[in-house]
Amino acid sequence: MHVPIDLLIEARWIIPVEPADVVLEDHAVAVNDGRIVAILQQGEANTRFFPRQRKRLAHHILIPGLVNLHTHAAMTLLRGLADDLPLMEWLQIHIWPAEEKHVSEQFVYDGTLIACAEMLRGGITCFNDMYFYPKAIAGAALASGMRAAIGLITLDLTTPYAADADDYLAKGLAARDALRDEPLLSFCLAPHAPYTVSDQAFTRVLTLAEQCDLPIHLHLHETLQEIEDSVQRFGIRPIERLHQLGLLGPGLIGAHGIHLNMDEIALLAQHSCSIAHCPSSNLKLASGIAPTATLVKQGVNMGLGTDGAASNNRLDLFQELRLAALLAKGYNGQADAVGAHQALRMATLGGAQALGLNDAIGSIKIGKAADLCAVNINDIGLTPCYDPASLLVYSAGREYVTDVWVAGQLRVANGHLLETNEIELINLAALWQNQIRPLNV
Amino acid sequence: MHVPIDLLIEARWIIPVEPADVVLEDHAVAVNDGRIVAILQQGEANTRFFPRQRKRLAHHILIPGLVNLHTHAAMTLLRGLADDLPLMEWLQIHIWPAEEKHVSEQFVYDGTLIACAEMLRGGITCFNDMYFYPKAIAGAALASGMRAAIGLITLDLTTPYAADADDYLAKGLAARDALRDEPLLSFCLAPHAPYTVSDQAFTRVLTLAEQCDLPIHLHLHETLQEIEDSVQRFGIRPIERLHQLGLLGPGLIGAHGIHLNMDEIALLAQHSCSIAHCPSSNLKLASGIAPTATLVKQGVNMGLGTDGAASNNRLDLFQELRLAALLAKGYNGQADAVGAHQALRMATLGGAQALGLNDAIGSIKIGKAADLCAVNINDIGLTPCYDPASLLVYSAGREYVTDVWVAGQLRVANGHLLETNEIELINLAALWQNQIRPLNV
Repeated sequence: MHVPIDLLIEARWIIPVEPADVVLEDHAVAVNDGRIVAILQQGEANTRFFPRQRKRLAHHILIPGLVNLHTHAAMTLLRGLADDLPLMEWLQIHIWPAEEKHVSEQFVYDGTLIACAEMLRGGITCFNDMYFYPKAIAGAALASGMRAAIGLITLDLTTPYAADADDYLAKGLAARDALRDEPLLSFCLAPHAPYTVSDQAFTRVLTLAEQCDLPIHLHLHETLQEIEDSVQRFGIRPIERLHQLGLLGPGLIGAHGIHLNMDEIALLAQHSCSIAHCPSSNLKLASGIAPTATLVKQGVNMGLGTDGAASNNRLDLFQELRLAALLAKGYNGQADAVGAHQALRMATLGGAQALGLNDAIGSIKIGKAADLCAVNINDIGLTPCYDPASLLVYSAGREYVTDVWVAGQLRVANGHLLETNEIELINLAALWQNQIRPLNV
Repeated sequence: MHVPIDLLIEARWIIPVEPADVVLEDHAVAVNDGRIVAILQQGEANTRFFPRQRKRLAHHILIPGLVNLHTHAAMTLLRGLADDLPLMEWLQIHIWPAEEKHVSEQFVYDGTLIACAEMLRGGITCFNDMYFYPKAIAGAALASGMRAAIGLITLDLTTPYAADADDYLAKGLAARDALRDEPLLSFCLAPHAPYTVSDQAFTRVLTLAEQCDLPIHLHLHETLQEIEDSVQRFGIRPIERLHQLGLLGPGLIGAHGIHLNMDEIALLAQHSCSIAHCPSSNLKLASGIAPTATLVKQGVNMGLGTDGAASNNRLDLFQELRLAALLAKGYNGQADAVGAHQALRMATLGGAQALGLNDAIGSIKIGKAADLCAVNINDIGLTPCYDPASLLVYSAGREYVTDVWVAGQLRVANGHLLETNEIELINLAALWQNQIRPLNV
């Protein structure tokens, strides 16, 4: 009567995210062929299954793999290049010139590889990327065994990568054609931002999104400057412009979404848009504080993003999880504004839903992929344990991640990447640093 | 010609905090009799000294041990007892009843012992505590080999520990008399807060502070409620009340300092008061966001505190360091508001100065105690390294702490506490949890 399966994970605690607000004690997750086939009590699991492998997590909380809904992974190579500077000086004097000079297919591959290692080890199993050279991004994700939503970037700016909006899109679509059968990859159209993309290019993006059934990922209402510029150039704010162009819809992922009035929040909710909330980046670049609690209350789907390592120097979704909850409380003057379960939903199912992947990932649910993250709570910093969800969000951190699976494949064990030589990656980063700007104290 | 010394620490990078904004490359710190006797280039160190012990930190940043300027260490036993609740419900229905029922000398000793382990492993070498049973706090700190400023708490509230303000003070002073020769201990008078301490008690505190040359540590302008209550009861805001009572001075440490007008900030600066900034706690309890950048600009000395584990569930000063810098930028709309070096100063020298210990600790300086913390940056999450200070504040975290010394004694090596059995402490916390509220999902 014992059904053979690939893997049985027995965990002290499981927070499945779906159904909401649930914590399971002494349950097990049965995995076969990369998918979750059962979630049940441990005793029952052992009468029902005959696992080829068994993982006992006696002091752990098992959660869905985290989904990083907004990043520019390759920018790890520019981590800390220029901090504590006013936004425009940072961008115009440091980041853009460095990108112009150094960004190449190899830069993107190497930078993304380093980012994948950091993210995976920190419990992130899927990331939504926007950068140049999408093929290189995809290659690094696949080499790391990570799930990724590859942004097919477009903007009205000539770079070594592409000449104009159409050229960007053609290259993006070619990358997608070459890679569309990879089970770990999905794709988003990624018009960079309202201030870098013309109406014409947005319209083309919309047509492609409808034809190919792809989400649209862009920076949205990140700074007051962006909104003022739009009013000056188009007579309307960016969200209204996107609305008039027909882009608001369930596939729209607006990164940041800081400066929003109540009408705009209602509009986003009505059209089932998603916001990729990036609290660390928003603070560090002094962009502002997003109205997270209001967005949640009005029904806008929220995911969490680290943004790139140049603007948030940790690609750490545990950090964002904690900060999203704390910041919503402080900003709203309400200690119950965004709770632990809600924050965890943002970092998992919220991101999955934004990417149109909520049937495949984002929660521990029968039929979904076994993208899983185990957090060891047997530590003086995580004791006592009155409430596992609260402990996970407010006390834990990525340093407690021990095991990570992507589609049932173990990628991190005992806190170490299984298929990545971390020292090689550190040396790789040092080589790039020497090209970009050797350290000179 | 080689001078024998106890210890030579050779580090890839040293951020001494004093002088400000300096990063030393390939330098060494010479330690003898628990004190720093030289800071010099590694080559020179090897011609000058003959160390009995040598520590090579080839991939590390060495910083002064962190000073946690506001905590209630024993509250680790209530960590996560009641999160995501409105402030008054949290205090009145959960925290206060739990304290009333369970807080005893043993509770304080055990809770503080667990807190010391967490803090020390995370690079904190000194903490400024305020809780009941100061002798128990001191005992736990000494057992852990940590430096502590013990709060001699007083308030107008009868508890199992003391009957009234005078009784609290008498017990506090007795504890100080018994322990004043301990080199790792110092003491603060700790009138709990303006809303729990009468004018009479404050006056008595002031007299004792002057007689015994002790700082005064209290909660100050943490919530709007506190200020409104003061206006109603005394006709003035708490800081004005303290001013009239004569308490503002270089020894005053106001914890939180969130709701401050420009006159109050000027008054704090004029009187050389210090603020213990607790950003995580302030957000989590929805108390508000402190005007850190303005306080710094106006010359108020700033330290950083974790607060107790019931209101900030990580006793992690790296977290507060990062959050203090990010929050100041976001709150002020200025990406250059509080920089990495400034944040690190708050977490070290700022705290030391507030405690009147700036001749003894808070920076890596000849003559000061060798309270030191080594952070290993040889990691994919900390690469590349364009700027060690920025890397330390924005990318690193307590999980990268490898070695910690207090007064030249190694307390943490390779990330592990040398004299503490972490498993025993975890079991101890579990015993308390079973008494306080067994977990019931």
